[in-house]
Formats: sequence, C-alpha cells, structure tokens
Amino acid sequence: MESGPGMFVIFGASGDLTKRKLMPALYALFRQQLIPPQVAVVGVGRTAMANEAFREAMREGVSRYSEQQTDAGHVAEFSRRLYYESLDTEQDAAYPALKTKLAAIASDSGIPANCMFYLATPPSMYETIALRLAHHGFHQSNGTWRRIVIEKPFGYNLASAQALNEKLLRYWTEDQLYRIDHYLGKETVQNLLAFRFSNEIFEPLWNSHFIHHVQITSCESIGVDNRGKYYDGSGLMRDMVQNHLLQLVGMIAMEPPARFDARSVRNETIKVFESLKPLKGRDVERCVIRGQYTGATIRGEHVPGYREEKDVPPDSRTETFVAMRFFIDNWRWSGVPFYIRAGKRLPTRVTEAVIHFRPKAYQLFGKAKTAADSNQLIIRIQPDEGILLKFGMKLPGAGFNIKSVDMDFHYADLSEVYVPAAYERLLLDCWLGDATLFTRNDAVEACWKFVDPILEEWQNNPNIRLYGYPAGTWGPREADTASGLFAVFDYDEMRWRFPCKNLSNDGLYCEL
Amino acid sequence: MESGPGMFVIFGASGDLTKRKLMPALYALFRQQLIPPQVAVVGVGRTAMANEAFREAMREGVSRYSEQQTDAGHVAEFSRRLYYESLDTEQDAAYPALKTKLAAIASDSGIPANCMFYLATPPSMYETIALRLAHHGFHQSNGTWRRIVIEKPFGYNLASAQALNEKLLRYWTEDQLYRIDHYLGKETVQNLLAFRFSNEIFEPLWNSHFIHHVQITSCESIGVDNRGKYYDGSGLMRDMVQNHLLQLVGMIAMEPPARFDARSVRNETIKVFESLKPLKGRDVERCVIRGQYTGATIRGEHVPGYREEKDVPPDSRTETFVAMRFFIDNWRWSGVPFYIRAGKRLPTRVTEAVIHFRPKAYQLFGKAKTAADSNQLIIRIQPDEGILLKFGMKLPGAGFNIKSVDMDFHYADLSEVYVPAAYERLLLDCWLGDATLFTRNDAVEACWKFVDPILEEWQNNPNIRLYGYPAGTWGPREADTASGLFAVFDYDEMRWRFPCKNLSNDGLYCEL
Repeated sequence: MESGPGMFVIFGASGDLTKRKLMPALYALFRQQLIPPQVAVVGVGRTAMANEAFREAMREGVSRYSEQQTDAGHVAEFSRRLYYESLDTEQDAAYPALKTKLAAIASDSGIPANCMFYLATPPSMYETIALRLAHHGFHQSNGTWRRIVIEKPFGYNLASAQALNEKLLRYWTEDQLYRIDHYLGKETVQNLLAFRFSNEIFEPLWNSHFIHHVQITSCESIGVDNRGKYYDGSGLMRDMVQNHLLQLVGMIAMEPPARFDARSVRNETIKVFESLKPLKGRDVERCVIRGQYTGATIRGEHVPGYREEKDVPPDSRTETFVAMRFFIDNWRWSGVPFYIRAGKRLPTRVTEAVIHFRPKAYQLFGKAKTAADSNQLIIRIQPDEGILLKFGMKLPGAGFNIKSVDMDFHYADLSEVYVPAAYERLLLDCWLGDATLFTRNDAVEACWKFVDPILEEWQNNPNIRLYGYPAGTWGPREADTASGLFAVFDYDEMRWRFPCKNLSNDGLYCEL
Repeated sequence: MESGPGMFVIFGASGDLTKRKLMPALYALFRQQLIPPQVAVVGVGRTAMANEAFREAMREGVSRYSEQQTDAGHVAEFSRRLYYESLDTEQDAAYPALKTKLAAIASDSGIPANCMFYLATPPSMYETIALRLAHHGFHQSNGTWRRIVIEKPFGYNLASAQALNEKLLRYWTEDQLYRIDHYLGKETVQNLLAFRFSNEIFEPLWNSHFIHHVQITSCESIGVDNRGKYYDGSGLMRDMVQNHLLQLVGMIAMEPPARFDARSVRNETIKVFESLKPLKGRDVERCVIRGQYTGATIRGEHVPGYREEKDVPPDSRTETFVAMRFFIDNWRWSGVPFYIRAGKRLPTRVTEAVIHFRPKAYQLFGKAKTAADSNQLIIRIQPDEGILLKFGMKLPGAGFNIKSVDMDFHYADLSEVYVPAAYERLLLDCWLGDATLFTRNDAVEACWKFVDPILEEWQNNPNIRLYGYPAGTWGPREADTASGLFAVFDYDEMRWRFPCKNLSNDGLYCEL
C-alpha cells in the first residue's frame, strides 16, 4: 500500500470531533512514530482563525482528551505541524486558495503531495466538499496518493446512500473512499475476528448446530445531550443499528475470509448483510420494538424525557430504543435468531455480544437445562473489555449439582499493553491504505436495504406503537414481555436473559 | 441405597491416617449432619488404649487436622461417640470379643447393627482382616448393611490383585467392597465429569479430531519421608500411576455414561482401561522413562537422595519419577498420545491435566502454529484448583498479531462455598452406599494389566536405564530430550511443553 509522508486535511476542523478524537489520535500516532515526522495537519473550517490560535486550541485538545499521558515537548513538536485555513467550503471559488496553501505547506516542509481528506463536517456537506475537491483536481495527482474519509451517517436511507455513493464514485474511486465506522476501530471488535479465526476450538461450534441464539446489546446511559437536532432527524435505528451493530453482526456471522485483507474480509461481511432475512410489513410489528425515553427522577434528580430535550419537537416520534429479532438466511445460521437491543438513557453503559450455545436436550445430571443455564460466550465490547465463558461445573460437596460459573479474560489484565483508541487505529489504517476496517459501498447499501423497510413501516403503519420508558430503566416492558420475543433483563447479572418459556422442545426456535 | 444410623469400625485406628484424615472427615460429616447423630465410631488396634485416651487423641486430631474451624462443643459431642477396642487382628480368636463389643455399643446407643469397616492397616493385613471378619459373620446380617473399605495399594501386581479380589469376593459381595482412591474424592477430579457432561461446547471437541494430545502431570516436592520401607517395595508406578493417575485418564477419556450412577460410570471407565494399548518389550524402553532422585543442595540445605532415605537400601533401583506415553485404542482416542509424568522431589507440588487441542494447519493470521500456541484446556487438580482455557486473541495495536492469553476460573473464587476434603466426600458416599467414586475389581485388574508388563520389563531388561535427577529439579533430562518423546518443562509457565520439533506435518503424531 502507498504510505509515507503526507498531509492530513480536516474539513470541519473547528468542531468537537477534531479536538476530542482526531487530534489526540494523530498525536498518539506521531508520538509513537507510526506516521512519519514529515506530516502536516491542515485544519479547514468556516471560522476565521490564525495558525497559532488553531495550534493552541489543538494543543489543549490533545492534553485534555488523550487517553495516555502527554508530554509537553512532544505536543509542541506535533503542534508545529498544524496549520489552519479558513474557507467557505460551499463556495467552489474558495478551493484554489486551499490548493495554493497545501502546495506551499508541502514545499515549505518538503512533504510530497500525498493527501488524506477527512470530512468532519455535517453529513449534508459530504457531497459538496467531495465534489468540489474533485472539481479542482484534489482527487488525483501523479505519483501521490489521495484518500477521503467520510464519517457516518452515510446516507439517510437506501436511496440517499445510493445517490451519495453514485456521486462520489463519479470522481473518486472506491479505493480512495474510507467510510469510517469507529466501532470497527475498537480493539474488542477486531478481536472478534482474531478470536474466531485464531482458535481451533470455537469455529467448529460456530454455527446453527451448536449456537442457539445471539444477542447483541448496546446500552447507553446518556441521553441525546446537545445533539437533539441531529438525533431527531435520525433516531437510534439509523444512528446505531444500520452501521455499528450490523457491522458487529457481520463480524460475528461471517465465513472465514480467504485471506486477511480488506477485499477478502469485506467480501465476507457483505455476504452476511445480503443474507439478512428481510423484515417487512407484519414482521416489523412482530419483531421490532421501538421506544422513547420519558422524564424520570433518578436519585432525586429530574432527568428530562426525550421530548423535553433541546431541539427536540414535543411530539417527536423518533426512537431512542430498539429491540429486534432477525435471522440470517444462509447455510451456517439458518434458524438461529439474532437479537439486537440498543437504547439511550438505560441504567448503564455496556456493549456486548453474547453467543448462547444450544442446551442439550439430554442432561446427565438431572433436570433439563434452559437456554439460561447453557454455555454462553460473552464478548464485552465496552467497558471492561474482555471475554467470558459461562460453563457448568460441579458445586463442591456431596452429589453432582451443577452450577454455572465464569471463566474470564479482561483486557485490563494486560496491564503492560497499550490499547489504542478506535480513531487512532483507523486513522493509521487509512494512512497506510488498509481499508479492512472501513465500510465498502456495497455493505453500506446492503445494511440500508435491511433497515429501510423497517423505517418505512414505522413511518406508514399507524398500528406500530412507540413505547415510552422512563429514563434510567431498561427500555419498554413490551420489549421483554408483551411481544414474547425478547429476553428479560436480569438485574443481578446485569444481562438480558432469554425467557425459557419461549423455548420449544427442540430448543431451536422460540415461539412467535 | 441403604443408609441411616450405624457404626464405623476402623482397623488400624492408632495409625496416622485415622488421626489425620478419617477423624476430621467423620467429624465434618457429623457436624454438618450429613451422617445421623446415631453413629458410633469404633477404633480397633493392637495398641492397648482406654476409650478415654482414644477420645482424647482423636479430639486432638480433629482440632489439628480439620480444614475448617472446629467447635469445642461439637468436638466433645462427636468424641462421645468414639470407642476403642484393643485387638490382635491377626488372631481369629480375638474377633468374638469385637462382636460382643459392637453389640454392646449398638444396644447401649440404640443403633442398628449397620457397619462400615475401614481397613487403615498395612496392605498385608487386608486379606487376613477381611477373611476373619467374614469367618465370624460380620459380613452379613439380616436387615442391616455391612460394607468394607480398603485403602490402596490393592495388590502389588496383577496376580496379587486378582488373588486378593478372588479371596475377598469369596465372602463379601462386590457391592460391599469399597476400594478407596482418595484422588476420586477430590472435587476437581469429580468436576471432570461435571465439566465434560454438563457443558454442550466441550464434548463435541473431546476426541481425536480436535485433541492433539493429553498431558497429565503430578509433581510432588516432598521425598519419601518416613515411608521408605513401603515406598521401596512399591515405587512411583505402583504408588501413583496404577491407581490415581490411570483413574484420572479414565475420567478424561470415558464415553458419556448411560446414567450417572456407580454401575454406569464404572462401566465406562473400565472400557478406557481395557482399551489402553499395551506397552510391552521395546515399547517400554522407548515410551517409559524412569528416574530416581539423587542428593542435592537446595537453598543451602542438603536434601538427601532417595538411596540415602531412611529404610531405603543404598543400591535401590526403585523409581521415584515416571514419564510415559501411551495410546487409547478406541474410536474416540485412536492416535492421540496421552502423557503421564509424575515424580517426587520435583521443584513444586502440582497435579493437572492439560488437553492440548490440535493446531489448525491453516492459519489466517500468518505463521503456522505449533502445538504450544494451540488452545489448551488446563484442569488443575491441586493446588489452586480450577480450570483455565488458553486461547488466542489480538494483541492490541496495529495489525492482527495474535497472543495466547488465559481465561480462568478458580475454585477459590467461590469463597462462600465449602469444599469438602476428599476423605469426607468418600466416607459419606460409602455411608450412603454410593460406589460411583470407588474402584471396582475389574478396573483394578485392568489397570494392573496395563502396568504389569512395564514393571516386568524393568525387572528383566538390563538395557532399561534408571536415570538419576537431583532433588529439586524437574526429573531426568532424558525424559525431556534424549528420548525425544516428552515435553520440555517451561520454567516461566511452570508447565510442560510439547516440543514443536517433534510435530510431524499433519500435527497428529510426534516422531518416535
């Protein structure tokens, strides 16, 4: 892959993402010499700002938001490589100035014209900026590389994602396009691949013969904060499910790739997305529950409901909670239900994937098992990253009474190992031209193809309810009980449990 | 099973085993009300002693050797149920007095004549006492139960074991005979069964398709202490391998039993013993290494060699170390080498079984794996009892570098659970008439059938060397290297490692 010295150009450089995530990540890469010292980071934004003011703001961002201890000398070194260019990015006429500026920086610093453009702007600007850049020839240059990184959301639905892809690909090649999903930069998500494909003992079990169901849970305790305007136009399905959580499903469910490179891995995840059994019409009513948090008093303090949040209309029907069940119709997974649950303003913050193995119908040690007693492999994405295996062992003492206990591994045990932040990993990969952990156009579209009919049914079918749940609770009760589809949350174990009563005798399907 | 009130009669009651193990175990059962309060414990021994002196000695034994805190009130309660009868157990004429004594105790205490006889005597006395008891009708009584417990060693070789079985079974039924192997009373050994047969995810992997080899290691740091006389006539093969370690092999390798009862479980372990591929002639030279510890200075202190131990002849050729490889010729295990290593005066005390899974020939993440990197399931019998799974995960940071880490579970994590001592469990089982964890006659003989030809070859083949190893080291080097058969001890991991160079390409057999 082409790599080496070059420039990192951030559009939307005065925004939060730049200060909180991008700069600490770039600094960490610089300090570890993972990117060359011949690097220039050019912030582009509408706000007028001098180079020095930008450097000052970014130095502060780095010190404040870096996960590791920073070193003043290093930070100063790094900030000398920062530049700022004030630009009205909507105006085509403004771009030649940027070209001149970049050329000047390149020539002054002796850096080749390799460029990585990062669009940290509102999504509405992606198309404009990418096309303007292409119009002025930023997308190509002999003997140098040019890449463009786009943040989620990539499109608002299938049609808009297709339109955006189509326009971008008119000028940029797919190889130049890096659709970033910061979930894929998380160590624990990547470890899913390593765990599955570097251990001999799990892959033989990784199919419908041995796996009863898969649960993916993503809880946030926070609400929408200041993002009410964006969030209300999006909702949890678009904000979390269409991208992050379906990507997780892809990693959990994919076949072993032929090689471990971007093309092979993404060829396999797309197969998963294309095998998702569509949820349409009645299915949506039966298999997808949506909720929205309402105001509540938590530890004596009033927590506003979603409709009371800033910039949220008082009659909003945007979902802040989703619980859904779906199937992957392929040879490996046919008949294995996958559950996704995600919500805001739940009692805790946790993301995990739980592989529930099938209980054996026959039990040597007495009473028949339920799915809740069966072996579970828990892959904790965040926090307290790690892997845990629930297994049965003999309770000490007379007889043979079986108790479920845990074997576990925590990343925190690797105290001497540096765990890079998601953005750090992904910016480096992009710098090195490795797109394995970025989303390809076909994957984006396949995920929208699955999500779109659900969103449409919500829009058009007045029978589909939006359930309220008090902030700080585990989502609408209907997700647990009324539908009969979903697990019950076990407050002792802080984990969703699959309701035993819904297990039919063969232990494979649960009742509809 | 028949149980209820009764008498526990110990032959050899003035010996160490009674004070250290049997009394604390009986006391624990009594205190937990696992045996009825209507119980009498009658010590029988050659030494003359009054009831009160016996009670005093046993009270002291209970307080000193109990693993749990004792309660003076409870101990006094318990000791009121103790009696002592001085008896020359070799003299047939002495037994009517015992009969009278037991009848008196039974009648005084209102206890039915149920009797459990425990032979804590030298093995040479087993036959005499059992036959004398039978001669006087102790083995039968209408409407009561009579059981007899025999400590290892059960025979000295196949012929003597067969002769002993034959004689005992002339009067006692197999149902009345409890051949105790305290290894089978250990929680971790029993948990092997629970672990294998209560988890869905291990049994599918538990065969030659997935398991590369199995290593059973039993290290002791102590020497023979005061047991030189017994030990020199026995040796490690008879003392550990023929009974404890082959029983472990039986539990690891057995098929799932039809039911979880004594008959079914023992029917399955006997199948394993009968499938052991015999080691004969040249096999013994190639596949079994024996060693004997020599004197050494450990931390500035002289540790005597085996030949310098009390009651050991200065030219003894008795083994204190054995390393061996063998196969189980059946459908499940064909081609999977089993390794046993055991020794005295090794640097530490540890017993564990390690299931080494087969490395996959194809590795997605770069270099081919060796057996040492492959998945391992480690079942720690003692100390620090627990289960540990070695698996590969992604080393945090750029790329996909795989590191082997551990998931583990320790019994010590179950802080609130009482883990009974091995004898406690086994005495209770015998009291309840459950022979699942005792060795049946056919198993004893099958194990001798496997071990006998090795012992004979040692006896008769002057080419077979006895290797010396300094006390406090990991046994003769020849067990690791010269033979090319055995694993190398990894001092960092405190575990034997299978030498990679001996893996042939298909990863199944190691070179001979």
